[in-house]
Amino acid sequence: MLDRRVEACRAKDIDQLMSVYSDDIVYFDVVPPLQFIGTDAVRRNFVRWFDEYDGPIGLETQDLSVAVNGDVAFAHMLHLDSGTRRNGLELAVWVHSTVCLRRLDDQWLITHEHISIPHDPNDWSAVVDAKP
Amino acid sequence: MLDRRVEACRAKDIDQLMSVYSDDIVYFDVVPPLQFIGTDAVRRNFVRWFDEYDGPIGLETQDLSVAVNGDVAFAHMLHLDSGTRRNGLELAVWVHSTVCLRRLDDQWLITHEHISIPHDPNDWSAVVDAKP
Repeated sequence: MLDRRVEACRAKDIDQLMSVYSDDIVYFDVVPPLQFIGTDAVRRNFVRWFDEYDGPIGLETQDLSVAVNGDVAFAHMLHLDSGTRRNGLELAVWVHSTVCLRRLDDQWLITHEHISIPHDPNDWSAVVDAKP
Repeated sequence: MLDRRVEACRAKDIDQLMSVYSDDIVYFDVVPPLQFIGTDAVRRNFVRWFDEYDGPIGLETQDLSVAVNGDVAFAHMLHLDSGTRRNGLELAVWVHSTVCLRRLDDQWLITHEHISIPHDPNDWSAVVDAKP
């Protein structure tokens, strides 16, 4: 399922991507607002993100850790998010990724996701050159 | 346990705070490096954070959601982090907080925590005035 999630991001396949989220998803993203609640808000935010790229999105996963018990699970990992932005800039940025899942009617769905980029504590700018 | 975590932060009680984390904690914080792994690294980072404040840390919790099943659990919430910084600046900032837990030898411990502040997508500065 985490593979499907990353594949859908790379391909910018919004329907495939949304199929891994629960209706009551609470999403903490790199950009405001503080919470994207529900699939409509999350879908719009993914489409906004897809539109930042001219072409496909590169997404690699590193340091994946998964814990599952019964109907609750979580996973954390780092993603290297790369690609050509609409302004022509080529960027590759490591992001924090935490995914929390529940099994509902025998189907695992993401009920909470948290994506972030660290800040420089001196000037509070985004740290886009941190490496794992 | 989440209450103990917040109380320990407010009081800057590092030993009490560290008692809620597992030895193999993987911590994604607002500042680099990308991962703080293990209690030594996490402890040093908390002490650094405590030292930013002149006096106690204000920490309120809102929109808490918890999922538990068997020996795995996760929780997500917003924290309003406030207080007087060493430079005299009074700041109150909403932060994303995700906490992932496992029960090990009948004791619940945090094995992963992820704290972040959103960025302005235009200039990538930290958004310190977002409100839930």
